[in-house]
Amino acid sequence: MKLFRFGAPGAEKPGAVDARGQLRDLSLLITDFTPDWLAPEKLAALTAIDLEKMPLVSEGTRLGTPIGGIRQFIAIGLNYRKHAEESGMEIPKEPVVFNKALTSLAGPNDDVTLPAGSVAGDWEVELGVIMGRTARRVSVDEALSFVAGYCLADDVSERDWQAKRNGQWVKGKSFDGFGPIGPWLVTTDEIQDPQTIPLELSVNGTVMQKSSTADMIFPVAYIVAYLSQFMTLLPGDVIITGTPEGVGLGMKPPRHLKHGDVITLSGGILGTQQQRIL
Amino acid sequence: MKLFRFGAPGAEKPGAVDARGQLRDLSLLITDFTPDWLAPEKLAALTAIDLEKMPLVSEGTRLGTPIGGIRQFIAIGLNYRKHAEESGMEIPKEPVVFNKALTSLAGPNDDVTLPAGSVAGDWEVELGVIMGRTARRVSVDEALSFVAGYCLADDVSERDWQAKRNGQWVKGKSFDGFGPIGPWLVTTDEIQDPQTIPLELSVNGTVMQKSSTADMIFPVAYIVAYLSQFMTLLPGDVIITGTPEGVGLGMKPPRHLKHGDVITLSGGILGTQQQRIL
Repeated sequence: MKLFRFGAPGAEKPGAVDARGQLRDLSLLITDFTPDWLAPEKLAALTAIDLEKMPLVSEGTRLGTPIGGIRQFIAIGLNYRKHAEESGMEIPKEPVVFNKALTSLAGPNDDVTLPAGSVAGDWEVELGVIMGRTARRVSVDEALSFVAGYCLADDVSERDWQAKRNGQWVKGKSFDGFGPIGPWLVTTDEIQDPQTIPLELSVNGTVMQKSSTADMIFPVAYIVAYLSQFMTLLPGDVIITGTPEGVGLGMKPPRHLKHGDVITLSGGILGTQQQRIL
Repeated sequence: MKLFRFGAPGAEKPGAVDARGQLRDLSLLITDFTPDWLAPEKLAALTAIDLEKMPLVSEGTRLGTPIGGIRQFIAIGLNYRKHAEESGMEIPKEPVVFNKALTSLAGPNDDVTLPAGSVAGDWEVELGVIMGRTARRVSVDEALSFVAGYCLADDVSERDWQAKRNGQWVKGKSFDGFGPIGPWLVTTDEIQDPQTIPLELSVNGTVMQKSSTADMIFPVAYIVAYLSQFMTLLPGDVIITGTPEGVGLGMKPPRHLKHGDVITLSGGILGTQQQRIL
């Protein structure tokens, strides 16, 4: 299934994509996709709905984050070898973990407003993992069974704030709108192997990033198991899993986002995003 | 006012401390202290309740976090000069910001279970700030008007996980139970100046930390204003503001927590905590 949420920010309703790719409104049956909807038995129950009988969502409707009530937004850094190299960082021996503020979450096509004083905005196409069950110290072998699905994500970053404002990356990763996720939560029945997802990002039509999750240093199952050693992961937690090479920081000279830039992301079955930079 | 929550984990009820220091049960009037209860007008409405007419909470009842539904748990590092020195770190030019997992939050007197494999558990008594209103790019002058109140906190840390597991401190700060806060949320009408709070922590009766928030490098108003430049702070967000000198890491040789240790914290008007290490 491909689940989504649509409508004005803070008032999103739930929907699902039907077999013909049309967006169906589920709000007559379901109030909202909250984390409890990601339990395996709840997701299974959703498959009982005949989507063809549900109203179509109007064309051009804004999409929000594919689930609401997200509690933890966790990111992995430097998880593609060539990106670590372009960033001038060592290949990590263990996953680098940091947080993005919950308030940075945004819909997949929302405008990204660079904060006043920002000079080093950057893009990062990533695979997002959305947890379905509480995971505490789980093994690599069982880790994927705790995942509800996947989504496309742009880990928008302010490089000066991330690197030059005294340690810990959260500062450069957390501004409002710096965390677009979606359009869909694609459930795991449609993605048996999360290491097969193509990822591509263009700026104003020029391809900047083009890779695949096959190139991750630490695969999804390892990341989920690893994180769960240090903290308990909850249903609805979003983990974005690092970006491949081709970010603005890695260019010579670095290319920073500017007003009017249009970022387009694609992730195969995960769908596409487009953000205008303001 | 001193607000608290009591009862079994996950099923806490709201309460308030009356003028004689007795714990009163407010659950007949209020379902729970969720972040919306921290708005100035809602806190003001609470003062209309005659606490003497409310039932007493049974002696020995477990206390939980003083509010529920917390969305962001943010920490400031190295905010006391002598603690930065004992940690072998430079005095920061700007606040060091990191996250603790939401799932690390715990009641003030809950046992702290060190995870299997942990060898470097440590303590940190801190002042916690609880936000009352949404703060986005606020000034230092107005920052405290966005705060609902304060609490005592123990920023339990696993030093090896924090420092030796490949960057970003969140790993060593996020295990279940590593974030006891409370017993009370003391509203700002009782604490006009948050830089006057004594902080003390003992291990098995021996005083290890003894200081005051007067010694902070970056005071609370500065921290709130600073954080709000990088991320939007929400009602109920908890910011712990750094620890003074006297942590186990700073001792020669370092003193790590071990099974059976008893940690006692006090913070003047903020009350006391006690945690048994398992």
